[in-house]
Amino acid sequence: MIASVSMEIPQEIIAIKRDGGCLSRSQVEQFVAGVVSGDFKDYQASALLMAIVLKGMTPEETAWLTEAMMQSGRIVALPEITRPKVDKHSTGGVGDKVSLILAPLAASVGLCVPMMSGRGLGHTGGTLDKLEAIPGFTVDLSDAAYRAQLAAIHQAMIGQSADMVPADRKLYALRDVTATVESIPLICASILSKKLAEGIDALVLDVKCGRGAFMKTEAEARALAESLVRISAGVGKPTTAVLTRMDQPLGNAVGNALEVMEAIDCLQGNGPVDLMTVTFELVAEMLRLGGLCDDRAQAQQRMNAAIESGAALEAFRDLVTAQGGDARVVDDSSLFPAAGWVFDLCYTGDTASYVAGIDALLIGEAARLLGAGRAHADAVIDLAVGIVFQKKIGDCVEPGAVLCQVHYNSDASLSAALERLRQAITYSFEPVETADIIIDHISES
Amino acid sequence: MIASVSMEIPQEIIAIKRDGGCLSRSQVEQFVAGVVSGDFKDYQASALLMAIVLKGMTPEETAWLTEAMMQSGRIVALPEITRPKVDKHSTGGVGDKVSLILAPLAASVGLCVPMMSGRGLGHTGGTLDKLEAIPGFTVDLSDAAYRAQLAAIHQAMIGQSADMVPADRKLYALRDVTATVESIPLICASILSKKLAEGIDALVLDVKCGRGAFMKTEAEARALAESLVRISAGVGKPTTAVLTRMDQPLGNAVGNALEVMEAIDCLQGNGPVDLMTVTFELVAEMLRLGGLCDDRAQAQQRMNAAIESGAALEAFRDLVTAQGGDARVVDDSSLFPAAGWVFDLCYTGDTASYVAGIDALLIGEAARLLGAGRAHADAVIDLAVGIVFQKKIGDCVEPGAVLCQVHYNSDASLSAALERLRQAITYSFEPVETADIIIDHISES
Repeated sequence: MIASVSMEIPQEIIAIKRDGGCLSRSQVEQFVAGVVSGDFKDYQASALLMAIVLKGMTPEETAWLTEAMMQSGRIVALPEITRPKVDKHSTGGVGDKVSLILAPLAASVGLCVPMMSGRGLGHTGGTLDKLEAIPGFTVDLSDAAYRAQLAAIHQAMIGQSADMVPADRKLYALRDVTATVESIPLICASILSKKLAEGIDALVLDVKCGRGAFMKTEAEARALAESLVRISAGVGKPTTAVLTRMDQPLGNAVGNALEVMEAIDCLQGNGPVDLMTVTFELVAEMLRLGGLCDDRAQAQQRMNAAIESGAALEAFRDLVTAQGGDARVVDDSSLFPAAGWVFDLCYTGDTASYVAGIDALLIGEAARLLGAGRAHADAVIDLAVGIVFQKKIGDCVEPGAVLCQVHYNSDASLSAALERLRQAITYSFEPVETADIIIDHISES
Repeated sequence: MIASVSMEIPQEIIAIKRDGGCLSRSQVEQFVAGVVSGDFKDYQASALLMAIVLKGMTPEETAWLTEAMMQSGRIVALPEITRPKVDKHSTGGVGDKVSLILAPLAASVGLCVPMMSGRGLGHTGGTLDKLEAIPGFTVDLSDAAYRAQLAAIHQAMIGQSADMVPADRKLYALRDVTATVESIPLICASILSKKLAEGIDALVLDVKCGRGAFMKTEAEARALAESLVRISAGVGKPTTAVLTRMDQPLGNAVGNALEVMEAIDCLQGNGPVDLMTVTFELVAEMLRLGGLCDDRAQAQQRMNAAIESGAALEAFRDLVTAQGGDARVVDDSSLFPAAGWVFDLCYTGDTASYVAGIDALLIGEAARLLGAGRAHADAVIDLAVGIVFQKKIGDCVEPGAVLCQVHYNSDASLSAALERLRQAITYSFEPVETADIIIDHISES
């Protein structure tokens, strides 16, 4: 703060945005500092948030908000790391276990991935919850342990500590209960303030669109991607957003332990095409931004080699071991928490058909009803339950074929989940074309 | 509440208004009940208030909001009162002491005026503060004392008790600090919920416009007046809004004790024309709505007679005595609190001019700087200080003429007030036409 004479009372700042005006850098900074200090009361912050949702923010205001939020707490710097430090963030989707594959794969091809995540609300837990399905795995590392791990194995996946980006934590909690989540400037600032506080050199974003994504339409997703890239590049971090489709679940598994098992399959070279396509695309972009590989075909060769040689899987073992987990899970999936029962959901039609749709939103709800996700911030997740698909869009199904396996721990949750699942899956007598999962790349460069 | 199954979480209700939708009656009721119970948190209420400011409310939503707020606490019913119970509300202006004249005058011509007021923030105190300039006067009456007084002398001027309209108290406090005051639906609901809880038969509104009013333009004031009349009539209370001009202070005195003295002058037949014009217009409309007098000329005759006979002044004495005040103030103004010093502000021009403008907003600021009004809810008011104008718009001023007397208690406050006063008063060498103070009447009938 420069001087108290330049301070305005919160309602004056709120009124400017209410009337469609632009906030100055100092007003944005005063808002963020006030939210953290309490000088801007919750009820004043939420009024301003609603005004921002309805009146928008310019790219300049969004950049100032991002920087002020990032600077609201401790910022990590990792000068001792000589590898390119590149992270990935996804706007979230059903079955999105890309991070679990991406970090060891990227580490095995020469990058450093200092990934910090939140838990969030969702259909399944976040990346941190999934990792905790591995016995012993901890996502809470001291700063010293985190740095030592990055230096040793070039990857870490931890929760962001409470002293980092406190403004985002406060604002996000408020937005969640005041219907002020849906705002591109606020989403941008929330995502980027957290990622830019990690001390990275560059960032790759997986911006999903479709039924199971936060952005339902390609236009909305593109607008968010463009804003993210502009703001991030504007503060000096080369950034690419990959626009990907999220109409059906990504990969076959939805659920915490089940998704870790699928990630291990992927690192062993047995991953489903859609999931590997997205993962490869993101890691290739990380290699490009990290200055390690400009050529897409060459990047693919390196990634293929890392998987075929077992180097990527070995990197995953290193990650698990470094964070206290039992790396034997890689070879023995019985070490994961398991649900009490498995139900085979079968195709009940009389004639062979093609799967036309698997509504990701309904699948997400089904997973949450099974107990795999949180409806409230303090809800307890059942790490074992979930759904594993045997059929995806475009697959032919014969009468009686198993569509998916439902891993469940109570009859009530099964019946609620089955209702959603039956609604979610649609069929066609004609063969079904599947759309490319990668829609576009958006970058400033 | 009908059943808990119909309850929605606050953020769902907020989202409807955020997206420009209409709330249902039950959603509006849930909001108001939730604000009072705490189920709707302050930060959720302020987000919804901002969405209402920016997206508006239909007349139906506004009426539901008004009724729900009115029903949030105790509602007075006065079946024992046989006279027409008619109240007046003003949107507020500088020098507006109309209530002090209107209540005894209306009581002396056959009406019952059950007036409840707030204190509010402002350039001077509210009606309650002004009355407290009379030694001994109390505005806190028990329900029984209030009713007995209405039965006996047909008028009372008290503060609204804490068990009435609690939703308005909570919402108003929140709006004040979240820049969500400026909204016609919210203003309507706030005004009418309080007035309709008084148990009145009809209502007259003084909706002011101009520099010293909340509504600066005639168009804004008219929109507010039309909305107020529609909502109030819609819930079965005949209502007229009188649109009046508030460019210069109303009457000559601005300040608490000073305004009571001017009100006494008015009841003695020595009131300034602008102030008496507004007061007569409002009381005439109260007589019409109360069914006592349809003919404007006849209403004027009755009011003139009440003043000339001393009946109106007697009614004021009755009011003061009934509420514990020293009625000798009517004949001995030395009983009022007096400021330490009086400064004569003189016209410093070389040649005779006409007063072209007395900016009411700056006059209000001057009065507040003298200590006559509150900047914060817990500020203490100096009842003695203020300004008494000798000249108003259109008056000719010779060099050296006294423009106004400033009653003050500290040199610092005087010099701050004088700066505003000198800015506020403008001159013309040509004679100045004064606009009619009554702009229009708006009613449903």
